[in-house]
Amino acid sequence: MSDLPMNTFRDCLPGIVYGGDYNPEQWPREVWREDVELMRAANVRLVNLGVFSWSALESADGEFQFGWLDEIMDLLAGGGISVNLATPNASPPPWLAEDFPETLMVERSGVRVGVGGRGHFCPSSEVYRDRSRRIARELAERYRDHPALAMWHVGNEYHALCFCDRCDERFRGWLREKYGSLDELNRRWGTLVWGQRYNDWPQVHLPRSSRGMMNPARELDFARFNSAIQLELYTAERDLLKAVTPQVPVTTNFMQFFRLNDYQRWAPEVDVVAFDIYPDPADPEGLVKAALQYDLMRSLRGGEPWMVMEQAAGAVSQWPFNLVKQPGRMRLGSYQAVAHGADAIMFFQWRQSRYGQEKFHSAMLTHGGQSTRSWQAVLALGNELDRVAGVATARTSAEVAIVWDWENWWAVEGCAHPVNTYSYKDTVVSHYRALWAANVAVDVVNLSQDLSQYRVLVVPNQYLMSQDQQDAVRRFVENGGHAVVSYFSGIVNEDDQVIPDGYPGGLRQVIGGHVREFSPLASDTKVTVRAVDGQELVEKTFTATATGWQDDLVAESGQVIAEHADGYLAGQPAVLDNSLGAGRAVYLGTRLDQPSLETLVRAVLGRAGVRPVHAAPAGVEVTERRTGDRTFLFILNHGDDKAILRLDRRGTDLLTGQVLDAGHELVLEPAGVVIVESPLS
Amino acid sequence: MSDLPMNTFRDCLPGIVYGGDYNPEQWPREVWREDVELMRAANVRLVNLGVFSWSALESADGEFQFGWLDEIMDLLAGGGISVNLATPNASPPPWLAEDFPETLMVERSGVRVGVGGRGHFCPSSEVYRDRSRRIARELAERYRDHPALAMWHVGNEYHALCFCDRCDERFRGWLREKYGSLDELNRRWGTLVWGQRYNDWPQVHLPRSSRGMMNPARELDFARFNSAIQLELYTAERDLLKAVTPQVPVTTNFMQFFRLNDYQRWAPEVDVVAFDIYPDPADPEGLVKAALQYDLMRSLRGGEPWMVMEQAAGAVSQWPFNLVKQPGRMRLGSYQAVAHGADAIMFFQWRQSRYGQEKFHSAMLTHGGQSTRSWQAVLALGNELDRVAGVATARTSAEVAIVWDWENWWAVEGCAHPVNTYSYKDTVVSHYRALWAANVAVDVVNLSQDLSQYRVLVVPNQYLMSQDQQDAVRRFVENGGHAVVSYFSGIVNEDDQVIPDGYPGGLRQVIGGHVREFSPLASDTKVTVRAVDGQELVEKTFTATATGWQDDLVAESGQVIAEHADGYLAGQPAVLDNSLGAGRAVYLGTRLDQPSLETLVRAVLGRAGVRPVHAAPAGVEVTERRTGDRTFLFILNHGDDKAILRLDRRGTDLLTGQVLDAGHELVLEPAGVVIVESPLS
Amino acid sequence: MSDLPMNTFRDCLPGIVYGGDYNPEQWPREVWREDVELMRAANVRLVNLGVFSWSALESADGEFQFGWLDEIMDLLAGGGISVNLATPNASPPPWLAEDFPETLMVERSGVRVGVGGRGHFCPSSEVYRDRSRRIARELAERYRDHPALAMWHVGNEYHALCFCDRCDERFRGWLREKYGSLDELNRRWGTLVWGQRYNDWPQVHLPRSSRGMMNPARELDFARFNSAIQLELYTAERDLLKAVTPQVPVTTNFMQFFRLNDYQRWAPEVDVVAFDIYPDPADPEGLVKAALQYDLMRSLRGGEPWMVMEQAAGAVSQWPFNLVKQPGRMRLGSYQAVAHGADAIMFFQWRQSRYGQEKFHSAMLTHGGQSTRSWQAVLALGNELDRVAGVATARTSAEVAIVWDWENWWAVEGCAHPVNTYSYKDTVVSHYRALWAANVAVDVVNLSQDLSQYRVLVVPNQYLMSQDQQDAVRRFVENGGHAVVSYFSGIVNEDDQVIPDGYPGGLRQVIGGHVREFSPLASDTKVTVRAVDGQELVEKTFTATATGWQDDLVAESGQVIAEHADGYLAGQPAVLDNSLGAGRAVYLGTRLDQPSLETLVRAVLGRAGVRPVHAAPAGVEVTERRTGDRTFLFILNHGDDKAILRLDRRGTDLLTGQVLDAGHELVLEPAGVVIVESPLS
Repeated sequence: MSDLPMNTFRDCLPGIVYGGDYNPEQWPREVWREDVELMRAANVRLVNLGVFSWSALESADGEFQFGWLDEIMDLLAGGGISVNLATPNASPPPWLAEDFPETLMVERSGVRVGVGGRGHFCPSSEVYRDRSRRIARELAERYRDHPALAMWHVGNEYHALCFCDRCDERFRGWLREKYGSLDELNRRWGTLVWGQRYNDWPQVHLPRSSRGMMNPARELDFARFNSAIQLELYTAERDLLKAVTPQVPVTTNFMQFFRLNDYQRWAPEVDVVAFDIYPDPADPEGLVKAALQYDLMRSLRGGEPWMVMEQAAGAVSQWPFNLVKQPGRMRLGSYQAVAHGADAIMFFQWRQSRYGQEKFHSAMLTHGGQSTRSWQAVLALGNELDRVAGVATARTSAEVAIVWDWENWWAVEGCAHPVNTYSYKDTVVSHYRALWAANVAVDVVNLSQDLSQYRVLVVPNQYLMSQDQQDAVRRFVENGGHAVVSYFSGIVNEDDQVIPDGYPGGLRQVIGGHVREFSPLASDTKVTVRAVDGQELVEKTFTATATGWQDDLVAESGQVIAEHADGYLAGQPAVLDNSLGAGRAVYLGTRLDQPSLETLVRAVLGRAGVRPVHAAPAGVEVTERRTGDRTFLFILNHGDDKAILRLDRRGTDLLTGQVLDAGHELVLEPAGVVIVESPLS
Repeated sequence: MSDLPMNTFRDCLPGIVYGGDYNPEQWPREVWREDVELMRAANVRLVNLGVFSWSALESADGEFQFGWLDEIMDLLAGGGISVNLATPNASPPPWLAEDFPETLMVERSGVRVGVGGRGHFCPSSEVYRDRSRRIARELAERYRDHPALAMWHVGNEYHALCFCDRCDERFRGWLREKYGSLDELNRRWGTLVWGQRYNDWPQVHLPRSSRGMMNPARELDFARFNSAIQLELYTAERDLLKAVTPQVPVTTNFMQFFRLNDYQRWAPEVDVVAFDIYPDPADPEGLVKAALQYDLMRSLRGGEPWMVMEQAAGAVSQWPFNLVKQPGRMRLGSYQAVAHGADAIMFFQWRQSRYGQEKFHSAMLTHGGQSTRSWQAVLALGNELDRVAGVATARTSAEVAIVWDWENWWAVEGCAHPVNTYSYKDTVVSHYRALWAANVAVDVVNLSQDLSQYRVLVVPNQYLMSQDQQDAVRRFVENGGHAVVSYFSGIVNEDDQVIPDGYPGGLRQVIGGHVREFSPLASDTKVTVRAVDGQELVEKTFTATATGWQDDLVAESGQVIAEHADGYLAGQPAVLDNSLGAGRAVYLGTRLDQPSLETLVRAVLGRAGVRPVHAAPAGVEVTERRTGDRTFLFILNHGDDKAILRLDRRGTDLLTGQVLDAGHELVLEPAGVVIVESPLS
Repeated sequence: MSDLPMNTFRDCLPGIVYGGDYNPEQWPREVWREDVELMRAANVRLVNLGVFSWSALESADGEFQFGWLDEIMDLLAGGGISVNLATPNASPPPWLAEDFPETLMVERSGVRVGVGGRGHFCPSSEVYRDRSRRIARELAERYRDHPALAMWHVGNEYHALCFCDRCDERFRGWLREKYGSLDELNRRWGTLVWGQRYNDWPQVHLPRSSRGMMNPARELDFARFNSAIQLELYTAERDLLKAVTPQVPVTTNFMQFFRLNDYQRWAPEVDVVAFDIYPDPADPEGLVKAALQYDLMRSLRGGEPWMVMEQAAGAVSQWPFNLVKQPGRMRLGSYQAVAHGADAIMFFQWRQSRYGQEKFHSAMLTHGGQSTRSWQAVLALGNELDRVAGVATARTSAEVAIVWDWENWWAVEGCAHPVNTYSYKDTVVSHYRALWAANVAVDVVNLSQDLSQYRVLVVPNQYLMSQDQQDAVRRFVENGGHAVVSYFSGIVNEDDQVIPDGYPGGLRQVIGGHVREFSPLASDTKVTVRAVDGQELVEKTFTATATGWQDDLVAESGQVIAEHADGYLAGQPAVLDNSLGAGRAVYLGTRLDQPSLETLVRAVLGRAGVRPVHAAPAGVEVTERRTGDRTFLFILNHGDDKAILRLDRRGTDLLTGQVLDAGHELVLEPAGVVIVESPLS
């Protein structure tokens, strides 16, 4: 994981980078000059160029038209604007589909899709792979020494999922490599259930339309395979770009809560994490979800600064109702990303399209032009960001980690579970929210990463755990860590096979108890959980509502800190608190209401000695980034009312230049942002 | 648009025509004689014959059996009943599908449908076209001089939508003819978005299953194409019938709120508009929707009388719950059609089937036979209609027009708009309801028609507007007209490309303002709009609730008559009132609650000097039809209670024969109907 | 219907049989010995073996591996445990699909499914039929004399539904045999509706994807065909097993409320009815539905004892929320089955799987092992059942019958009916509930069975009635029976053709009235029905709410006992009471609320002289089984509170051994069960 290319890049583009996707081919040349002028006015320093330009650059197989791109590259370079140049593989031109129909994706039903949208390619097609790499190579060779070239943007939001015969064949090959023998595959997939034992490789297929439920281990491997073959598309292009321009950083843009790609496996292959984020203004939890995603992006490469590669200046257009960002909220959201480690704020897209599928997706410069509130906000933010240039490359230091794990996501939402309406995303958000509300710094990790730096580890419904992961949690606690583990964790191994000897087979020693039976609650059922007298973690008056799930739980070494107060499990344990080695593990055997979960998590944080970054009223988020000698405090008022916060340190408000004394009463407007720089003491 | 055939027809069948679909092939011969007797009893004068008789008339390719049809034609002629003879192309026989599988329709997914329903044909199949025309020609030749033949009923409710290779090829040809060159197509479809530029015609396809959203200009052209190729099926048969029987009028039956066919383009090709209407008794707005549809049918051919070709005597069977028409409501609905210009009241069908898909669809003569309330109502109405014979050919004169436009329907419900749960139909109904409640005569037009006769023009969400249409609205206002334009109008041109220079590019001068940003509201959000002091159109106490949408609106020459009272747009304009030339335009930048919309529309009508046809209490609809020297006032009580109305003129109640003085207090029973004939003063 | 095999079987396995599905191939050999030990501890006497073992028994075409099965058969025999040996046709191995793709099922859309689930075979494939019979024959030959072999379990839960060309061809053949000529098919299908008359057999197809609604008579025949071709799969294997082991009973397991198979036609072909039942603990009506299904299972073979072949010890896993069975409820449900005639209580499955699709489906021995409440309950019940051994072979004697008819189910839920959201299942459950609440013994029959033994016959929405069935109901009443008939009965004949001369053509004489029009009510509409003075069946204060449906009903010989009190049918009859011959028929022309329906049904039972099995408070179910000289009273407390019941006889509580005097006050705990044995006096 050499960071040489990124260093080189940061030398060219210091501070917080500002910009967006640029699609000049949609506009006549007279607009291009205005674009560059307005970009300069808005302090745009980087544009993503050519993301969807394949058909404009290669009008027929092997017939290239780089003239217009030369021209725009020169124009941008002349304006001092750098380019994140795309390899345009995300949307192959119609000629490719017409000349080579096998390049088109096949749906699960067997229907081969047509052209007209985007992303309609088969990731296994040799022709697609050859042609997309050829144009990437052409671009690299042509612009290798162009002064505008700052970075490579490989493809766009990889999301291929194909069921064609070629993919089927590759899946078989992938399995053959993974398992070595059919016997091993049969054993680990458990094919004797429902009598589906394979006796020859050609019988093994990807999961097309079937009768009845499908083997879940096959589904899980298919998910792994899909992430892997897409990553392979990326790395192949990256390698050929690196061969030509070794100093230019290469990345691709990740997506929010995106199930298809295991970005924890992808991140080591990019030079910088680039992220597309579209929080829904209609979702009151949108900003918490964004914070979780930002922390994940930062954690993906061990805390390195990352880029917001796409966000919307205003409304998007793909949802049933597409709400605008109200005054101040785009700015607030941008600073929230920086507060969580972003060093670049970029938009899709620079200039709003007049036609096509995304013409009502907002842009930096919308149809309404320079008269709009939206443009004024874009303009102001671009210029304001210069004041926070010093934040760039600063890091976040977290004592708390929460688990987010793609393999678990795929497995825990599998078929025929005790509850089949389950959302892994909602569960992790709920647990993360408790940490976010406490204003502690959080890393987002999986259990195969090094956990030694953390004091608290939150493990939400980690159904799938390999032996190594089980060991990691046990070691984390034994070595003095504080774990919070919620129900339906430690149930199956990496082959989706139940770990024997009672639930949670993988964590029984850690939680100090076992589960005799899972007891889901009907969707309209609520039960009560109450504290048990004489334990340390929650008040004896603690009472919670629980929904959705109950464990029929038996305490072993664990102390019962809360029990069921009603229902047929009345009097049985609901929450355990176990000592193991030098650490502690709290186990939640049911789903507590959100305030009660937050109370419990705060108690664990307190016991572990984890302090908030800064005291703050509800609705005010505070984070911190540090360089070797400076600390930057980000204070963000997400509320609709003014908020007051008494500063715990002396420092300079970067956005106003004002020096603030310790004890100063900061008054934050709704959507207000204060960034305080202080020397590291 | 020669009306020669219709005049000939009206000479044979004067007055209000009564009748229905007749499917004698489902019944043994002994029933036929009873049918004719009962038809005569009910005053049936026209039957639609042979709509689904292809398989009964041509048992195998080229083997015709006209014997039974000869017999029934003679029997009907003997009974003095005329025939609207169908060409039976709507449901090809199984042998056609078996001998020529390419005649079967292909779904978007690529699945070729089977036989067993109806309408399962590909509209582009050469074999289908050949065979359906051959049997039409056989019928024309055989019955050209038959005394029963009064009219031709070509096909039935055209609704073909096929995705086969032959249709794909024709779509390509249609585009080639429209655009001339691929460059023109690329430019107008905006194919550079998402990199889908075509460089050779064979790459262009109809929109089959795809990945991601589809190019909206392609979708729009596909909608135009589908309407056109179906119309071409109709005109080809019409032409061959005309060649044999030039004096016999030809038509096909249109459907209610039917998205697939642009009946404004179809109407010039029929000799008379024929309409199938099934208002849902469970829908409280059903009668308003019916009125809108009736006004559309009348307007389609410039005010010519039209025919209800199908309605139900009682319940239908295709909905989740199929409610009966309660006592008096079938009669009331029939007179409502006449009140809006219909000169024929016909039913599907004469005798209820004993088997098949529609056996629980009511009929003039149901399974319950002559004992039923339903038959009594059919019998009574048929005989009563003789009393209103004088209404036939009378016209409606409207000073108000509302826009209904298929191209806009297709475009405004396209993908990736600010709000994607939008219903064009509901929007137009809501605007129309305001006019209907005011009891003013309304024409339903599109903006490519001559608007010079109208004083008020209502333009609901006319998203798509060609340059000519923009000009037409501007000229309408400049010349003294009063326009009401609602938000999201004048946004794109006929290629679904945003009109430049700010929203609404096409109407900025007309409305006297521009929109900086569209600001949809979440589905559960309501905001308040209130009048601004000192303007003329609404009271200063006017307050409305708005939902769904807000414009970030800037007044230019327009006067702000209402503003947002809350939300982040508080204090910004919600409704503008603009003077332009000799006229006025009121612009609604949000969606007002229905009563407020009605208040506003009434104010505009008042200012424009448009008066109700007659004063009436709520729930009572009044319309007028006129001949050269007579006027007919239709007074319809849709309410569940008695209603009283003081007559403004002297005249004769056609249904009772009573002479009524001006000032007479008419007492209308629930579902009551009064038709007053007066001399034109 | 010789019961020789069952007698032989009962000699080997007397009393109430206990056991479950056993899938030893999922476990290593060391587990097998523990299994046998624990089975013995739990009093398991029969296991279903090899249900999904095809791929484990035949690894490639013709390569058999019986070694492991030999071993486990011997082990079980050694432990005194009998085997219900399966022919493993329910889930063909992957090699069959790969070598012979035509063995895979085709969906209605035309998609051929892949392997990986189960039941993915085409029931018409010659290869599938050949190979599945070959392995059945191999098993029969190999284990014909094995001491463990007690019974044959042919296939599993037959549920094939295939649309391939081979099935299409067979459907055509089936129709040809049924109708003889195309003319007859055309006449009885009513193909002249929508012009779909066939003129050559190859034009006739099974109902693939189509345009518009499909011919309902074709749909109905397709339903008959699907049941028939699956039954034929079963009988073919049964016959070959019988040829080898004539003394061994053969069966297959039926499913609950399973629409695809007409088990009334299947039942004569099995030696004993075997039933899989999974009541949902979240459904408050679950136990009533179970009772109905149990009564159906008992009635299928004229009252013979039957087997619960599969139930769950705890939660299942296929529903959105899978609730556990709370303490005592598994035991209660098991005794409920015995109370309704079951002589075997078996489970899916013995040991919970560690992997695959059903790993969270509970089992007798769950992942939690012997520590669980669930295992304790399984263990206790297995041993307790010895005390009720005397119940085995005892019969139930019912004076009341309710109609459940698959042909009606298929037809009454057909397309384009007056109400299209109708559920036949819910309707029958609602009527059955009235009988269940009255604690009378009920047989579940269809109208083609002998009805002479019953005093009361309940006929819920029997839309389809052949002439014979119409006659049967008329004769039943004429001979002194009491019928309760609800609306939309007697409407069509067996070809789904409306019976002429007014509704209900088939029952007009029986109900003493006719229906002029069906008048469905919108889903949110309620109307009131009230008693008419001076009739005998209900109190004059009787008032009911009605929803969903009204008949426009005319009384003829029938007496109006309740009328509509509001709505446009106010004053018209709602319920008729008719005398015909020696009997009475009550006709419900609307859907009464449940308490009112129960009141009315109780009144009919009272008038017919039908008494409850035993007086009991609400929530307590009482049934009776009798042998030649003993009677067994089952008293089951389904409530959540204690219940008290004063015994009407002297007897012995089988579960405690206590002798109870007549008049004894039994105190039943929640979920409590008492079984009282008395001599037959």
